[in-house]
Amino acid sequence: MPRLMELNRYIRDVPDFPKPGILFKDITPLLRDAGALRDCIDQLAARLDGKRIDAIAGIESRGFLFAATLAVRLGVGLVPLRKPNKLPYRRVREEYALEYGHDALEMHEDAVQKGQRVVLVDDLLATGGTMSAGRRLVERMGGEVAACLFVIELTFLGGRAKLAGVPVESLLRY
Amino acid sequence: MPRLMELNRYIRDVPDFPKPGILFKDITPLLRDAGALRDCIDQLAARLDGKRIDAIAGIESRGFLFAATLAVRLGVGLVPLRKPNKLPYRRVREEYALEYGHDALEMHEDAVQKGQRVVLVDDLLATGGTMSAGRRLVERMGGEVAACLFVIELTFLGGRAKLAGVPVESLLRY
Repeated sequence: MPRLMELNRYIRDVPDFPKPGILFKDITPLLRDAGALRDCIDQLAARLDGKRIDAIAGIESRGFLFAATLAVRLGVGLVPLRKPNKLPYRRVREEYALEYGHDALEMHEDAVQKGQRVVLVDDLLATGGTMSAGRRLVERMGGEVAACLFVIELTFLGGRAKLAGVPVESLLRY
Repeated sequence: MPRLMELNRYIRDVPDFPKPGILFKDITPLLRDAGALRDCIDQLAARLDGKRIDAIAGIESRGFLFAATLAVRLGVGLVPLRKPNKLPYRRVREEYALEYGHDALEMHEDAVQKGQRVVLVDDLLATGGTMSAGRRLVERMGGEVAACLFVIELTFLGGRAKLAGVPVESLLRY
């Protein structure tokens, strides 16, 4: 068991991004530090200890940074969940609400097989809308969500409640 | 030395994406296969054998999939190069031409230190415009491009010529 670094020291608060009044949690200092990055992946992998997992699904685009490394670490395949019209093959789509309007997430229809246990990965749990759409994509194709995994959780936004029924794990809670 | 799989078998040709007449190289079958994904990372890492490297820079968003895993594998930090206005902190920007109009790539100004040797990673080398902008970002901050690394190179588009002066490596050439 490696000594765990305090990852919190590598998260930079950026005020008023992307708009006034928002305090943005910037993960780039964590990414830039080789030790902190490895430790973060170690900690994410530890949250999956003992689970049967067939695939890791990463949410575009910061989720890709953590999902790919985890997939290779665990020796399973990687499924990208992307913004609309980015994936080239036959797709399924799930929409989710934004503050104003809506957005959507897409997955290839051959990405997840019936009965596969899939871990969904993103950098940040905010309101939970994006991850909830990711969960519906996996379940629509007959997959089972083994866990939703985040580096950061903004607890005051209550996103965890939107993911009721599946295990939710986050490393850093604010 | 692991036996290398023929990665080419995991690339799916999708005709007429994103528009009529384009034959798109779909990497999702490669990502989905745990063995092919690991082999791909092994082969990318092998292209960097013997080089001194201080950081891996990944280009949004498919480049993130390979860059992050390589950074952890090599024990160096990871720098995300992103589309405009996605990075929260102080940024530098380089523009590049598209078929019609232009786009840009941004990097945090504290992402690369003077004298650092950086490997730039993306999934695909097409015309070389995006990677060329990435190279300029690294060099503007005083970094040195140790290599530009791709999974796929579309040789008929001649992108390699746009990267003259830095080592260019690709695993699969079409």
